[in-house]
Amino acid sequence: MWKCAKFYALRGFYFFDRNPELFNIILDFYRNNEVHIPSGTCGSLVEKELEFWKIPFEGIAECCRSRFLNFENELETIKKIKHAFDMHNTTELGVVEAKQSWFNWIWLFLEEPLTSTPAKVYNIIYILVVVLSAIMAFLFTCEEMREQYIDIDTLINVTTAAGFNVYTDRNNPKDVLHATTILPICRYTLDRCFLVFFTLEYFIRLIVCPSKIEFLKNWLNIMDLILNVSMWTRFCLELNMTLVMNSYTAAWIFGMSYCMISLRLIRIFRIYKQYLELRVLLLSLKTSFKELLLSLVTFIVISALFANFIYYAEFQEPSTFPSSFSGLLWSVVTMTTVGYGDVYPKSTPGKIVGCICAICGLLILAMPIAIIATNFSNYYQKMKDISKFKKKVNSSPKQNRISGNAVGNKAFNNC
Amino acid sequence: MWKCAKFYALRGFYFFDRNPELFNIILDFYRNNEVHIPSGTCGSLVEKELEFWKIPFEGIAECCRSRFLNFENELETIKKIKHAFDMHNTTELGVVEAKQSWFNWIWLFLEEPLTSTPAKVYNIIYILVVVLSAIMAFLFTCEEMREQYIDIDTLINVTTAAGFNVYTDRNNPKDVLHATTILPICRYTLDRCFLVFFTLEYFIRLIVCPSKIEFLKNWLNIMDLILNVSMWTRFCLELNMTLVMNSYTAAWIFGMSYCMISLRLIRIFRIYKQYLELRVLLLSLKTSFKELLLSLVTFIVISALFANFIYYAEFQEPSTFPSSFSGLLWSVVTMTTVGYGDVYPKSTPGKIVGCICAICGLLILAMPIAIIATNFSNYYQKMKDISKFKKKVNSSPKQNRISGNAVGNKAFNNC
Amino acid sequence: MWKCAKFYALRGFYFFDRNPELFNIILDFYRNNEVHIPSGTCGSLVEKELEFWKIPFEGIAECCRSRFLNFENELETIKKIKHAFDMHNTTELGVVEAKQSWFNWIWLFLEEPLTSTPAKVYNIIYILVVVLSAIMAFLFTCEEMREQYIDIDTLINVTTAAGFNVYTDRNNPKDVLHATTILPICRYTLDRCFLVFFTLEYFIRLIVCPSKIEFLKNWLNIMDLILNVSMWTRFCLELNMTLVMNSYTAAWIFGMSYCMISLRLIRIFRIYKQYLELRVLLLSLKTSFKELLLSLVTFIVISALFANFIYYAEFQEPSTFPSSFSGLLWSVVTMTTVGYGDVYPKSTPGKIVGCICAICGLLILAMPIAIIATNFSNYYQKMKDISKFKKKVNSSPKQNRISGNAVGNKAFNNC
Amino acid sequence: MWKCAKFYALRGFYFFDRNPELFNIILDFYRNNEVHIPSGTCGSLVEKELEFWKIPFEGIAECCRSRFLNFENELETIKKIKHAFDMHNTTELGVVEAKQSWFNWIWLFLEEPLTSTPAKVYNIIYILVVVLSAIMAFLFTCEEMREQYIDIDTLINVTTAAGFNVYTDRNNPKDVLHATTILPICRYTLDRCFLVFFTLEYFIRLIVCPSKIEFLKNWLNIMDLILNVSMWTRFCLELNMTLVMNSYTAAWIFGMSYCMISLRLIRIFRIYKQYLELRVLLLSLKTSFKELLLSLVTFIVISALFANFIYYAEFQEPSTFPSSFSGLLWSVVTMTTVGYGDVYPKSTPGKIVGCICAICGLLILAMPIAIIATNFSNYYQKMKDISKFKKKVNSSPKQNRISGNAVGNKAFNNC
Repeated sequence: MWKCAKFYALRGFYFFDRNPELFNIILDFYRNNEVHIPSGTCGSLVEKELEFWKIPFEGIAECCRSRFLNFENELETIKKIKHAFDMHNTTELGVVEAKQSWFNWIWLFLEEPLTSTPAKVYNIIYILVVVLSAIMAFLFTCEEMREQYIDIDTLINVTTAAGFNVYTDRNNPKDVLHATTILPICRYTLDRCFLVFFTLEYFIRLIVCPSKIEFLKNWLNIMDLILNVSMWTRFCLELNMTLVMNSYTAAWIFGMSYCMISLRLIRIFRIYKQYLELRVLLLSLKTSFKELLLSLVTFIVISALFANFIYYAEFQEPSTFPSSFSGLLWSVVTMTTVGYGDVYPKSTPGKIVGCICAICGLLILAMPIAIIATNFSNYYQKMKDISKFKKKVNSSPKQNRISGNAVGNKAFNNC
Repeated sequence: MWKCAKFYALRGFYFFDRNPELFNIILDFYRNNEVHIPSGTCGSLVEKELEFWKIPFEGIAECCRSRFLNFENELETIKKIKHAFDMHNTTELGVVEAKQSWFNWIWLFLEEPLTSTPAKVYNIIYILVVVLSAIMAFLFTCEEMREQYIDIDTLINVTTAAGFNVYTDRNNPKDVLHATTILPICRYTLDRCFLVFFTLEYFIRLIVCPSKIEFLKNWLNIMDLILNVSMWTRFCLELNMTLVMNSYTAAWIFGMSYCMISLRLIRIFRIYKQYLELRVLLLSLKTSFKELLLSLVTFIVISALFANFIYYAEFQEPSTFPSSFSGLLWSVVTMTTVGYGDVYPKSTPGKIVGCICAICGLLILAMPIAIIATNFSNYYQKMKDISKFKKKVNSSPKQNRISGNAVGNKAFNNC
Repeated sequence: MWKCAKFYALRGFYFFDRNPELFNIILDFYRNNEVHIPSGTCGSLVEKELEFWKIPFEGIAECCRSRFLNFENELETIKKIKHAFDMHNTTELGVVEAKQSWFNWIWLFLEEPLTSTPAKVYNIIYILVVVLSAIMAFLFTCEEMREQYIDIDTLINVTTAAGFNVYTDRNNPKDVLHATTILPICRYTLDRCFLVFFTLEYFIRLIVCPSKIEFLKNWLNIMDLILNVSMWTRFCLELNMTLVMNSYTAAWIFGMSYCMISLRLIRIFRIYKQYLELRVLLLSLKTSFKELLLSLVTFIVISALFANFIYYAEFQEPSTFPSSFSGLLWSVVTMTTVGYGDVYPKSTPGKIVGCICAICGLLILAMPIAIIATNFSNYYQKMKDISKFKKKVNSSPKQNRISGNAVGNKAFNNC
Repeated sequence: MWKCAKFYALRGFYFFDRNPELFNIILDFYRNNEVHIPSGTCGSLVEKELEFWKIPFEGIAECCRSRFLNFENELETIKKIKHAFDMHNTTELGVVEAKQSWFNWIWLFLEEPLTSTPAKVYNIIYILVVVLSAIMAFLFTCEEMREQYIDIDTLINVTTAAGFNVYTDRNNPKDVLHATTILPICRYTLDRCFLVFFTLEYFIRLIVCPSKIEFLKNWLNIMDLILNVSMWTRFCLELNMTLVMNSYTAAWIFGMSYCMISLRLIRIFRIYKQYLELRVLLLSLKTSFKELLLSLVTFIVISALFANFIYYAEFQEPSTFPSSFSGLLWSVVTMTTVGYGDVYPKSTPGKIVGCICAICGLLILAMPIAIIATNFSNYYQKMKDISKFKKKVNSSPKQNRISGNAVGNKAFNNC
């Protein structure tokens, strides 16, 4: 330690080339045996100082430890945000290696809307196609958009006569609708076009992506894969309806493949690539994941508790809560303050349980919401600061941009 | 740089006339090659120091960058608030040019209630008239406030006999009410007076306003224009009911002109001109606009997703969710925790989707609400600080009010 | 200014007996013509410094003005809290003047539970009596708690025969209940006791209170007065039921006097006198009153707007929203996310308006709630700090308790 | 005081070995008779300084008192968190005394999942058993999971013939279900196993616990005891059904013992021992307990007030709110914005009361929720800081780990 200090023999004192204000803190440590950090001082400076004077971290007083860690939390947040926004940079690194290749250009064009104007335009077109295909998925289920080709009685007679195993449920209007109507030909064709477009786009991206493993691990791509597989399954089964009508398994697969259409909407999250604000939203959800999960567990346990309570509280009431399970939806709906009103307590003990349940729900949900909201505000502010700082740096006069070291050396050389 | 420093040859040192505490920061930069800013120090001072010592902004350590930008965020907020409250000042500039003209006086009288007491009184009267006209618009639709002049059977016979195209829907009590009753004469006259008053007021403001383009771009004035046009359209069509009864287009326009009456209420927002608190409320909504829009997109995408999920989850249930569209209102109503209970899941998979939907809604809505609430608190506090500071300055003794420079010079001259 | 400085002629410098760190700020003002305040420095010190150096407040840079005012906001908050908790102190001042008098002792006994243990005990008894009387008011309305003395047919026959003007509505079970049943004699007597107790208590407090005007202006006492008057009115009218049955005015007054029983519950707020936490709750509501009122206006205007929109959006739907007024409850219920489900939009345009309404409501309500929550947290923390500080001062060794000045003088004299 | 200072006779000044920056504050006290604390400075340093200079705490200016107490609040929070997480440490102390004994090992194994890997595994198994037993409790109430052994008519005939006192209510399907069906034998056996397991586990823990009193006072153990007793009661009564059918008391106890099954779920809170995040959640609920209770009182008083108001407001409406009590659930359901819609105001005055009630509820609930959310964020951040600091200390090089004093001495000795 003392080697760092210059000893000015004549004048009779050691000279430590350290920040005098921080030395105050160090001196206080020797006075009180505790390091107290002024809240203004950046923790990283203190850390360097402690290391220089070989003071262990335990020397920091308990009341100042959070303060000391502040800068690390800040750096961590910044790192997380930069990581979330840095897809470009990592791919730009790839650019250096394979700038000449077409693959990389296509990859950036398809995946990174912020890298070039055509990519941005393509992304908007892509999103419009997704919105259109999602609207199509909605229209599939509307009676007005479908054309009847057979009436229900004929259908049932035919299927019965043919000895098929899977029948249409005459009492379920939704089932009847799907069985007796078909899409008009134009919409059918459009849906096939989407099928081809999405499959092609997926395979092109798979081919040109820099890292196949990263690509296949990304949950958006997994969704894409599931969606494509389900669309092709549906396509194949539609060519072979007899199979669907004979085998329950095939019918179930056919139903599931219809259900998967919903996933089309998830593609719209591609819009998140274009807006930093939305990336922050995702990031803050991801960061709070563990806390959310644990809050969810608490929420479920407590709602299960109330489900059970309400069952026994309403036991004397014949018309409500036939089993504990029916109390489960009620307690979730009450605790989230949705309150549909399809089931509600009718007896006095049940009403009391209901009131307690509603208040408990508000209090328990306040906590995860507080975490989410705090994290989001925090990340959002930091994100804005980072981009503002970048702008400020870019707008400052260029001749000034000599690295700190250079400035330092020049300055000292001038002395 | 060194030119700024005075060299005291005899004593052998350079004298930089800079803040010694900030110099500590600069020295640290030469020690560690990083600028760490104590949180207490105002960023603008640091900025000046960095410029003086020609240290680029990149030299600021990552953990201290937000801290450094703090002062800019603050200045930005203050600028926004001042801009939102500064209508006077910009128009006062107009005052200088045309103080003699009547136009400006009328403009201030009509538009800026805070400039004079008569203007304030006029504004209150104006708001009362608006409230009265809005109440009138409500009363239009009440059965008790209207007088029957014909019964529905006669009306249908007459219109059928006359060969009109547009018939009254006998099963819709609201349609019947509007067709068979008229307003009593006194209320009818009052409504005409409002029509004249609002039109006159609009044209006077248009004539006297300092900048026609600004005036026509203001959304409140656009609303006023739409409202006036629709009121006159209605007036003209009422004089010529035969046209309305023969042409579907005319009937539709007539209906729309009725609907536009709702816009009367928007005029009440003139009250915002009188209360700074309400201007802050508007300002914080405007500032958070982009974030709100993106949150809204997320919200819509996720509610569309759940609308689709619930449709397939409830497919086996005949009585609920006839199409995906009907699931859309349900998912919005669930995610905002309104929960009317007109539609709700009945099957077990549907109930599970419902529970997840309610919890997702709470979490997603927590984020835009956090932004709005934070912005509002922030702006509100600043607004109060600005007006408090103004009061403080005004209440301090007048003789002290010499500009800083003068004080400085005098002080140094005295030395 | 220079008179304050001592001129050390020999050494050749002026000596200003001022804080050296703050002098840095002052010097910066002469360098940059702006005062920047380090966030750590207490604003009141800066104020003194500015006054000493005769620098006007305008010299404070815009980015540091909020920071400068911080200490004033803090002092204001503390003053408000102390004022809210200081009833004692003001009455203690009264104690000095009239310590011998019984009046003051009774006043403190009745009104200030925190001044002595018997007062605390009395307050708890008082609250129990109030709770009992409130429960009685609830029981009044229960069928099981009343005794029938006449059946409804006889009653109507009798009243018709007697030629009374006010009849019981046979179709309204609540009206029938009140007309055909009476309270059992024990409960009736108990209610009379409460009447006497509350009236006596009110007059005793009125007689012994230090300031009659303050007493009569207090809203809790106004409520008490209304309650007592209504209780006596009811008592008088019950002795003379024939009058009630003949005059509509008397019947209406009788009804109102029943309704006023609800106010009994307000007396429970006396519990607020015993818990500082609850006083803070009231205080923060009172402080945010103006903001709440303006938010309420915004809320009402926007819900009226949506009430009108929904009426026209649902015009084609025969069964919903017969008039704009019926839309008003719907829009309030939707915007607060209560969502009873008694009325809800059924047509597609109505559903869209409904969704927008729900989201608008959440956003608009987020703002007043943010104010309330922030104010409450703030006041609550301060309240806890104040009482903690008091404890700390009281627990510190007594011999140290010499006033600052004395210490200062002693210290300097020792020099 | 002056004894602490060294008097350097020759040079003519006193030397106080104190922090020079804090001395500034002290000097200011002698100038202004008030201590102003820079926000950056840690309060504990200031406290020491004030004690050294014998300045009473009252000398601290009012605007700086909260700031001064900051460090105490921080220390308190840290202490609370450490206490909540320190079960280990207190039991580790026990380890020292009785390390050889089996008891302690078993205690740590059963109670502290974070102390060893087998304990963690056991805890997970335990939780799985609890979840299974809780699911069993749910399944008890499902019709599908039970086997009918008698039909309802036979049952009633038999019980009537046998002259039993307790009959099954034929109109209550839940009662009929429980009376006419039994559990299948396998599930019955499983339930008996749980009974044995939980009883054994309870007694083992009771035997090995270090402090019996602490153990019996813990509310989780009280719940366990209640649960075990109720399970054994049920077991005994099931062996003797004739008693249940003859005595109303026995039937009631039997019913209660069923109801207590719900408490099984509470055992899942053992999961809280494994996750620090969940302990923080509990801690923040516990810390805010007093405030929550008082908010709850306010909430109940105001909902009772609205219950009464709505009764009188809806008096003319025959179909709603038959008594004030029925208004109580309505007002709680409205104020928490649940809004089932089973009861809602129908008359105009009732609707107005309803709107006010909803808005009041939102405002009143905002305050306790703000406390909970703030406390939780605060504790959560601190908890993360504490564990981060621990990691940082552990990861710093070991040779540095000499205690502060030693370092200090060494350093000074070297001088």
